[in-house]
Amino acid sequence: MPPKDEAASPPATPSQPAADDDAAPHRHHKDESARGRAHRLFLPLAEKARSRSIVIQNVQPQVNCGRYPVKREVGDTLHVTAEIFREGHDKLSAVILYRRISESQWRESPMREVNFGLAEWAGSIALYENARYLFTVEAWTDLFASWCDEVEKKLGAGQNVHLELVEGRELVEEAAARAQGDDAKRLQAVLDAFKALDDGARASLLLGQDVRAMMARWPDRSTAIRYDKELEVMVDRLQARYAAWYEMFPRSQGQIPGRSATFADCEARLPEVRRMGFDVVYFVPIHPIGRTFRKGRNNTLNAGPDDPGSPYAIGGPEGGHTAIHPELGTLEDFRRFVAACHAQGMEVALDFAVQCSPDHPWIKDHPEWFLFRADGSIKYAENPPKKYQDIVNVDFYCTDWQSLWEELLFVVNFWVDQGVKIFRVDNPHTKPVPFWEWLIREVQEKHPDVIFLAEAFTRPPMLKMMAKIGFGQSYTYFTWRHGKQELTEYLTELTQTDVKEYLRPNFFTNTPDINPPYLQTGGRPAHQIRLVLAATLSSVYGMYNGFELCEATPIPGKEEYLNSEKYEYKVWDWDQPGNIKDYITRINQIRRDNPALHELDNLRFYPSTSDNILFYGKMTPDRRNMLFIAVNLDPFVANDGFVSFPLEEMGLGPRDRFIAEELFSFRRLEWQGAKHWIRLDPYVNPCEIFRITRIGDVGW
Amino acid sequence: MPPKDEAASPPATPSQPAADDDAAPHRHHKDESARGRAHRLFLPLAEKARSRSIVIQNVQPQVNCGRYPVKREVGDTLHVTAEIFREGHDKLSAVILYRRISESQWRESPMREVNFGLAEWAGSIALYENARYLFTVEAWTDLFASWCDEVEKKLGAGQNVHLELVEGRELVEEAAARAQGDDAKRLQAVLDAFKALDDGARASLLLGQDVRAMMARWPDRSTAIRYDKELEVMVDRLQARYAAWYEMFPRSQGQIPGRSATFADCEARLPEVRRMGFDVVYFVPIHPIGRTFRKGRNNTLNAGPDDPGSPYAIGGPEGGHTAIHPELGTLEDFRRFVAACHAQGMEVALDFAVQCSPDHPWIKDHPEWFLFRADGSIKYAENPPKKYQDIVNVDFYCTDWQSLWEELLFVVNFWVDQGVKIFRVDNPHTKPVPFWEWLIREVQEKHPDVIFLAEAFTRPPMLKMMAKIGFGQSYTYFTWRHGKQELTEYLTELTQTDVKEYLRPNFFTNTPDINPPYLQTGGRPAHQIRLVLAATLSSVYGMYNGFELCEATPIPGKEEYLNSEKYEYKVWDWDQPGNIKDYITRINQIRRDNPALHELDNLRFYPSTSDNILFYGKMTPDRRNMLFIAVNLDPFVANDGFVSFPLEEMGLGPRDRFIAEELFSFRRLEWQGAKHWIRLDPYVNPCEIFRITRIGDVGW
Repeated sequence: MPPKDEAASPPATPSQPAADDDAAPHRHHKDESARGRAHRLFLPLAEKARSRSIVIQNVQPQVNCGRYPVKREVGDTLHVTAEIFREGHDKLSAVILYRRISESQWRESPMREVNFGLAEWAGSIALYENARYLFTVEAWTDLFASWCDEVEKKLGAGQNVHLELVEGRELVEEAAARAQGDDAKRLQAVLDAFKALDDGARASLLLGQDVRAMMARWPDRSTAIRYDKELEVMVDRLQARYAAWYEMFPRSQGQIPGRSATFADCEARLPEVRRMGFDVVYFVPIHPIGRTFRKGRNNTLNAGPDDPGSPYAIGGPEGGHTAIHPELGTLEDFRRFVAACHAQGMEVALDFAVQCSPDHPWIKDHPEWFLFRADGSIKYAENPPKKYQDIVNVDFYCTDWQSLWEELLFVVNFWVDQGVKIFRVDNPHTKPVPFWEWLIREVQEKHPDVIFLAEAFTRPPMLKMMAKIGFGQSYTYFTWRHGKQELTEYLTELTQTDVKEYLRPNFFTNTPDINPPYLQTGGRPAHQIRLVLAATLSSVYGMYNGFELCEATPIPGKEEYLNSEKYEYKVWDWDQPGNIKDYITRINQIRRDNPALHELDNLRFYPSTSDNILFYGKMTPDRRNMLFIAVNLDPFVANDGFVSFPLEEMGLGPRDRFIAEELFSFRRLEWQGAKHWIRLDPYVNPCEIFRITRIGDVGW
Repeated sequence: MPPKDEAASPPATPSQPAADDDAAPHRHHKDESARGRAHRLFLPLAEKARSRSIVIQNVQPQVNCGRYPVKREVGDTLHVTAEIFREGHDKLSAVILYRRISESQWRESPMREVNFGLAEWAGSIALYENARYLFTVEAWTDLFASWCDEVEKKLGAGQNVHLELVEGRELVEEAAARAQGDDAKRLQAVLDAFKALDDGARASLLLGQDVRAMMARWPDRSTAIRYDKELEVMVDRLQARYAAWYEMFPRSQGQIPGRSATFADCEARLPEVRRMGFDVVYFVPIHPIGRTFRKGRNNTLNAGPDDPGSPYAIGGPEGGHTAIHPELGTLEDFRRFVAACHAQGMEVALDFAVQCSPDHPWIKDHPEWFLFRADGSIKYAENPPKKYQDIVNVDFYCTDWQSLWEELLFVVNFWVDQGVKIFRVDNPHTKPVPFWEWLIREVQEKHPDVIFLAEAFTRPPMLKMMAKIGFGQSYTYFTWRHGKQELTEYLTELTQTDVKEYLRPNFFTNTPDINPPYLQTGGRPAHQIRLVLAATLSSVYGMYNGFELCEATPIPGKEEYLNSEKYEYKVWDWDQPGNIKDYITRINQIRRDNPALHELDNLRFYPSTSDNILFYGKMTPDRRNMLFIAVNLDPFVANDGFVSFPLEEMGLGPRDRFIAEELFSFRRLEWQGAKHWIRLDPYVNPCEIFRITRIGDVGW
């Protein structure tokens, strides 16, 4: 195998002035016929070797060897590191090259060697636009810097440097030929001055900061090496990382029992949702619902004539994925709802569930998209031995798969055109990985502001793959992680390993499908605990309506809600006693007020002496905002213990005094030292959030 | 950027019977002109999607994303793992594809899913030949296995499977069409029998082990996915991993003071070297030595007329890199020495030092290979402010670099032709990385049994890079690691991280350039300690002659040997009192007798209660050979403490009795339990090696 070139591609489009390749002094083409020994197999290796001696490896961040993009958000700084070295003692220079994927011209940002022993270089680029970027690294031998270093050492040892000065002058001559504008003139002036000077003065001239700066501006990059991969970074808008979601069943937002609510009813609820501090209103599917094999209450097989059916059985005579259930309203009504959301500073997320009811118009119009069986019947969904006869899946591999894929793309773009910029995708892991990669790129090519949330409750590699191929957010296993150790381990994986480069965990406290035993049994404190965990461990989180009422009655022995609105009309009393709307309002306000909570990967866990108290913190890089959160994970019993603040990370000495402001109770404490005792009573408040202010910072 | 295909390439040369691609049922080519919406940018992604839904990622082992080969030795089993998954519930099958790089036909080895939750698959291939291999992974959806799984679940739930059986028959029909030989007939017989049976009997027939086995032999691999990279493994001969080296200064092997020894003198020493248990006799350069700026005793600048000079100043009127110093003998004499080594079960390693003395014939014959300065003088080696005027470096980047590189290749091949199959390369890190990659591949293409040892005492990334690009062994920082923690950390990095995939550490106790302070001050026990560490921590190690005499007198304050034979003729008394030849003989015998010591990455550290006692073990995978080594790192003071044996790893319960045989003292102990007290007195023996035998194993 001819070795692949990790650090071998000669730069294709030098973005800085560089010598003409053909004129480069040592570029030769081997005349095989003229040589005694021909080494065909490895010829390419030797052929290019002249320009290849710099190794550039391990450029970070990258995902799966650069196969998938890393993710960032508008306003972020992307920190890039690489190992760069070559043989011998010559000095190197390196830059990050980057450009928007739609541009052809590279921009540059300097790198510097931050760890000589490990040959580690670092640099950064500011990401201002909601777009896909490419970046790579280019390095070259800095002959003049090497020359300066050598001459300085020799001068320091009292050696004669007459010849070195002649060689240095040649380097300046070459740079003068490359330079343009003022620098060209000034370098020529240096060369003119050089003639008349003695060696001591010549050395002072060439080693001066002025000449060095000019020489650094006009390097010889004709033999520069470029990293063999162009890495991609998807820069999403900030809301991909920082938002609070409210999941809403639109038909249950009204007041009249046994009847569907309308978009107007939903609109009426918006001020309350906004008051609670949410940013995104997420609607389960709003399309017509099938009649064939419609599910009855509590997922029974015998729906009554008035049972509305599951909104996930999409499609009926009224239309399919681009239609709206007539009971909810018209497309015009939907647009009005979207506008109302926007007017109140929120936005709408829609469910994208690819499956169809047996009554979906596609089945008649495009039977080629579906699988039929030997007896002519359509193949419904099943997970043997379970049957889902109210659902039919499209066949992504059908003969006419391209028209199917295009149609699904059309559906998404249709809703984008109605103002929807967020899609929560139902079960993406049961559809082909390349389909999603294609669809998301297609949509984002025109609408980079569209965000997809993957509901991939499946094995970790597939869950992660959905994030790698483009989903901007992911449902996670958070809902099933309750213990101190499992939360610590899971969050450490999400925020401190390479997973953070591509996966944004949207922590849902509950969903229409997940009523976890912890909430079923733990009551109001359990809801408060899970809320605070979701809202502070991750920067983006959500809840499903009813959570604010601590509604968690299950079908016994299951994670399902009893009498779920998935299968029936429902009317909620949104002011039901025992609700935690004020608590939600407060936590969302705390999130809003504290930029440390807008970040994900700044999460760190700290010691607490209680097995039931989870203690963690988030701070901004400048330490202007430092929050520490203590959560009693036991919803039944008060727990107490010592928690340890990381004084050094906080920029505090062991004797420094600081202000701890508890953000639920508003009490302020003046503290000193790392260890503090806390007691968390679930019936008072199972969680405390301390904002720490260094006394110097507030000027007291 | 059109996404690259990590798991996307359709197999180019199916090595198993597979359906004709053109006949594959769902393969279609998109007619762009016929479509309303053309998505040029991502078209390739959709185009190939039909055959792409399986993800194959993280195939291990691989180095730098597959850019460099992993290393193994003849007789090894290469364990390959990968994450393989797709959407939905279909069953997958996967194989490792592998071939010698010189072959075109892939061979196959099955993989199986070893961890469903992590989608982790594993398999292995046996490496029998000293050659470069390629390997990759291929996976496909196993429709029949999926069908069996589904039907069994439905039967278990008492569901009607009539239609499923019809579908199963179709799968068998397709396989029958693919099958050849007996299987084709037998599958046809199954189909014939099927007709006459009722559903129950049909299910039993198709679900039977016999049909399953046949179906597994004739899978539909038309939509198989192949991992996007072909990974390389260099299979070296065993000696690359397991050998004991003896470094010899040939001119100092004689008896006459002030005069060079000859190859015949060296030959006279072979029986003794062999008796000590060495496998490789490594000669420092044996070429003519320059006169210009020749170094005198102790590296002084004023050589006397009788000073022999450093053998690293290669080349004189008598010749260069393919010549032999006349004082040592002729080429014929050298061949005789090589033959004598082979006859005694040893082999010869030669030094390959690219630099030249100012008198090297290349300078006259090929001035184009060297750098000359403005005043016409040749540029000698320097590391400012240090000057090495006895050395001139070739310019690897010179205009005529190709003829230079070819000449250097010629030099290596010249010595290969004399029977030398091991080269120790001097300072490779001061020469271009691609040069070595090219040279080693060139040599090994014809002589895969040639091994290169890199003396890259430089920054870790470059040291490792030399191993990645082909050096089969590496000098390491071992010589400077003496403490318990630093040894543990360093060896853990070398043996338990991905470094083990490509770097074989050749642990030298000392070299002509390295007389570490530990040996200078620690006397005989220090030599014993470093010997045991080198010989048991790594599977390949070496010493430089004189070590067996505990000769460590330094130039005060330096790591250099006083009156080094690098610069003068020397006569050694190889039977000098206080020598440790018996100790060396014993340790090499222990290495030979115990296969656990032939391995590198089986090293594990275990607890000892003393900060000065390092305790570690090596065992064979079958636990037939288990060694535990305790080394008192303090050469001055006896230390004692408890060491803990890893009973579980050893296959022992806490109450099982076992035999511990101490291999220096030959005492046998019957032990029980993990913790045992030991005392190591440097003046008795600073090291103990316990061979553990489970009592069941010996049949007592």
